[in-house]
Amino acid sequence: MSTVRIDLNADLAEGFGRWELGDDDALLTVVTSANVACGFHAGDPTVIRRACGRAAAEGVAVGAQVGYRDLAGFGRRFVDMEPRELADDVLYQIGALDALARASGTRVRYVKPHGALYNAIVHHEAQAAAVVAAVRDWDPGCAVLGLPGSRWLALAEAAGLRVFREAFADRAYTPEGTLVPRREPGAVLHDAEAIAERCVRIALGEPVAAVDGTPLRIGADSLCVHGDSPGAVAVARAVRERLAGAGVTLRAFAGGED
Amino acid sequence: MSTVRIDLNADLAEGFGRWELGDDDALLTVVTSANVACGFHAGDPTVIRRACGRAAAEGVAVGAQVGYRDLAGFGRRFVDMEPRELADDVLYQIGALDALARASGTRVRYVKPHGALYNAIVHHEAQAAAVVAAVRDWDPGCAVLGLPGSRWLALAEAAGLRVFREAFADRAYTPEGTLVPRREPGAVLHDAEAIAERCVRIALGEPVAAVDGTPLRIGADSLCVHGDSPGAVAVARAVRERLAGAGVTLRAFAGGED
Amino acid sequence: MSTVRIDLNADLAEGFGRWELGDDDALLTVVTSANVACGFHAGDPTVIRRACGRAAAEGVAVGAQVGYRDLAGFGRRFVDMEPRELADDVLYQIGALDALARASGTRVRYVKPHGALYNAIVHHEAQAAAVVAAVRDWDPGCAVLGLPGSRWLALAEAAGLRVFREAFADRAYTPEGTLVPRREPGAVLHDAEAIAERCVRIALGEPVAAVDGTPLRIGADSLCVHGDSPGAVAVARAVRERLAGAGVTLRAFAGGED
Amino acid sequence: MSTVRIDLNADLAEGFGRWELGDDDALLTVVTSANVACGFHAGDPTVIRRACGRAAAEGVAVGAQVGYRDLAGFGRRFVDMEPRELADDVLYQIGALDALARASGTRVRYVKPHGALYNAIVHHEAQAAAVVAAVRDWDPGCAVLGLPGSRWLALAEAAGLRVFREAFADRAYTPEGTLVPRREPGAVLHDAEAIAERCVRIALGEPVAAVDGTPLRIGADSLCVHGDSPGAVAVARAVRERLAGAGVTLRAFAGGED
Repeated sequence: MSTVRIDLNADLAEGFGRWELGDDDALLTVVTSANVACGFHAGDPTVIRRACGRAAAEGVAVGAQVGYRDLAGFGRRFVDMEPRELADDVLYQIGALDALARASGTRVRYVKPHGALYNAIVHHEAQAAAVVAAVRDWDPGCAVLGLPGSRWLALAEAAGLRVFREAFADRAYTPEGTLVPRREPGAVLHDAEAIAERCVRIALGEPVAAVDGTPLRIGADSLCVHGDSPGAVAVARAVRERLAGAGVTLRAFAGGED
Repeated sequence: MSTVRIDLNADLAEGFGRWELGDDDALLTVVTSANVACGFHAGDPTVIRRACGRAAAEGVAVGAQVGYRDLAGFGRRFVDMEPRELADDVLYQIGALDALARASGTRVRYVKPHGALYNAIVHHEAQAAAVVAAVRDWDPGCAVLGLPGSRWLALAEAAGLRVFREAFADRAYTPEGTLVPRREPGAVLHDAEAIAERCVRIALGEPVAAVDGTPLRIGADSLCVHGDSPGAVAVARAVRERLAGAGVTLRAFAGGED
Repeated sequence: MSTVRIDLNADLAEGFGRWELGDDDALLTVVTSANVACGFHAGDPTVIRRACGRAAAEGVAVGAQVGYRDLAGFGRRFVDMEPRELADDVLYQIGALDALARASGTRVRYVKPHGALYNAIVHHEAQAAAVVAAVRDWDPGCAVLGLPGSRWLALAEAAGLRVFREAFADRAYTPEGTLVPRREPGAVLHDAEAIAERCVRIALGEPVAAVDGTPLRIGADSLCVHGDSPGAVAVARAVRERLAGAGVTLRAFAGGED
Repeated sequence: MSTVRIDLNADLAEGFGRWELGDDDALLTVVTSANVACGFHAGDPTVIRRACGRAAAEGVAVGAQVGYRDLAGFGRRFVDMEPRELADDVLYQIGALDALARASGTRVRYVKPHGALYNAIVHHEAQAAAVVAAVRDWDPGCAVLGLPGSRWLALAEAAGLRVFREAFADRAYTPEGTLVPRREPGAVLHDAEAIAERCVRIALGEPVAAVDGTPLRIGADSLCVHGDSPGAVAVARAVRERLAGAGVTLRAFAGGED
């Protein structure tokens, strides 16, 4: 009998200087993959290094959470930049993070873009291609994490990168399998038990209810949990416990130990 | 009969976005080592990548010109920062540059701090130690370039790094072998032939005249030429030609081909 | 017989720290209105203050050249930001510039957005309204400068601001009176005499040839000349001389002396 | 019988984009003067405008909390910059804040430098003079707030600015009246009642115990309370209540209603 496995990922190292955000230490005892901010939208080198050190100690895989150069907007504003410049910015960020990760006993194992860049490359062909080019320039064997059906994952796969799909534990889905926009009612789930229940179903390959009740099967290699809101760590812990209780093995999709 | 060898280094990739500075392409046909800015005091990822690509094409060694996070001050203002944070900032910059260098077919071969950081770590023990720690964390076999007699080189040598000394082709020296401060008369030489003549003497191990005329022997593995002023490239070319004419072989001190 | 008057405007103070751009001093002997960068896309406080001082000495009107917070992109990348945040950013920039202008013996007399923001608010209703709101919050009697037919000018006029139209001396126009995109052939004019000739025709209310030869009448209160390319100052001087030769009086549209 | 009056000041608007810091709304119901960050060390235009609006609604005086351009270091790192450039940076910040304050129905009534700049200008003659020059260029009638005995206040007074002295409610003093450095034991007081008790004594002109027990009389026009640590608002409230209970009238030293 085969073991059911899934990964839990969360955003980390999103403080900057005096400003803290989220509880990195607590989250790193829960997740198996850490999307570490790289300094362009959040994350100064000291915050990054600390998160990498804790990730290494907990056996959590480090991924590069690359973003637009936009501290004031936290990388949540689309920036209509030249794809070639975007590729250079992404490569710069991955390299910077990797140096800090290596000094902490680990290394960058995957790339997951952040915020507005994440959303843009679902559809924006040129920017998606730029991020793919940067990752391939970095390491043709690198893993990438993203939204199923996105141009980002399609182009990454075509470029020979190792592609992994994520589902959002706390977001409602349309019957077509896309995310319900945040501004619509019911877009974000808050009940820890309901979120954990959905996670178990997704991990086991069982359908979950779309926002209109339609049963929907969401293929996912990783479940994204959030860490920057009050109660976020408690939700993440509930998810982890319910998955364990259902016999699902939590394991980084891009772990170095494979 | 042994060959006399020396390296020529210059600062590169010091533009940022719309702003250009210096003539990277021209300088890269003259020098053997390029101190490439890393984005904190100058150098955006696209400028950096372009310089790395040209350096690779010309066989010029790439070094990390790390600096304080200070675009507005071009890294020329001392920043009294925590050594631990400085170490993290330096490691971040080296890693970022290395990723762009590798995508361009080369890699970071040495580290030479920039501006106010360069000056600070001549004497500032804690900041010097922080930069040394960052370089060692990056690569214990990395080369470093700096001022003879500086704490930076002393601590780097004690840490097992490969240490190289530079002399300034266009600066006057005191009889004690330190640089005459820029604000004093005669501190900066402008005559291309005079500068080139000094370079030949330094390369051959012959004494040059200190600012007061005292003969001074300056041991150097590399000669620093400048690229961001009008006429700078012409001076650099004159230096290169005179060295070649004197039978001195120009060769990167940290070249990968050794 | 009434005097024909027009204004000449150019972008100024677009350096930043070590980086220079354009020849502010020379341009300020040519133009009657200076669009002074405000620090978000270019222009540090020292560069700004120097430009304001020179503008005051030359009797040139100072305008706020507000932009997106994007030094790396020089404000040339559209940023999809919240209109409310954009309004705050614009107000911040105007106030900052005005303080430096007042210390230099002048003040902000008009607002002309820069780069991608300039282009965005031709059509982007929400961002145009945000910039208008910021200007009105600053001073309901403030003048604004922009593209005829833009949402920016329409909303500014509806808000009671004093609206002025500009024409581009070195750009080709479509028969409909919009600018030919830069990427198309013939979009940018380079011949100083041809540019100056067009300027005279526009100032006198005579038609100029659109890109396809169609005669086109362009109503304009100000002519924009550029200062950041080689030869730009020479073109601007040619424009000024030809206008003077044609009996056109050069005068700031938003001068304080009215 | 004359009324005893004092001012309570605190730092506000120290968030930036996604990052929050302190509870501005709560503090603004307690203090009479708000040191509003100006964007260089903290405070984006939207955070600033919100704080100004709340300050105006509560009748709290707005001051410019100017700092070094150092988001990553939160303005807590000394930057050895040119005094002339510092003056320009300070003027830029004051003007930017004032524009947002005016749009919120109030204006900048005083200047209190932040962090490392605050500490530097206690002794650093050239930087102190630069900040004074900037304030005077802004408004020769402007008030300034600072440490008694500092070069900052001495030069401000000599320049004709209106000078006010502050005491720190939660800091231990040496017998000479200077602050005990934070790294020394007992430097920071944490007990709300003890802090409030000291405040009452300072307000009434009674001596308080220096760190060695020596009675020390601290002349102060304003008491600084902190807002960015857990429990800070509670301490500020306790101070306010005890002062009211002792018959001390809380009133802004630079209020516009005088």
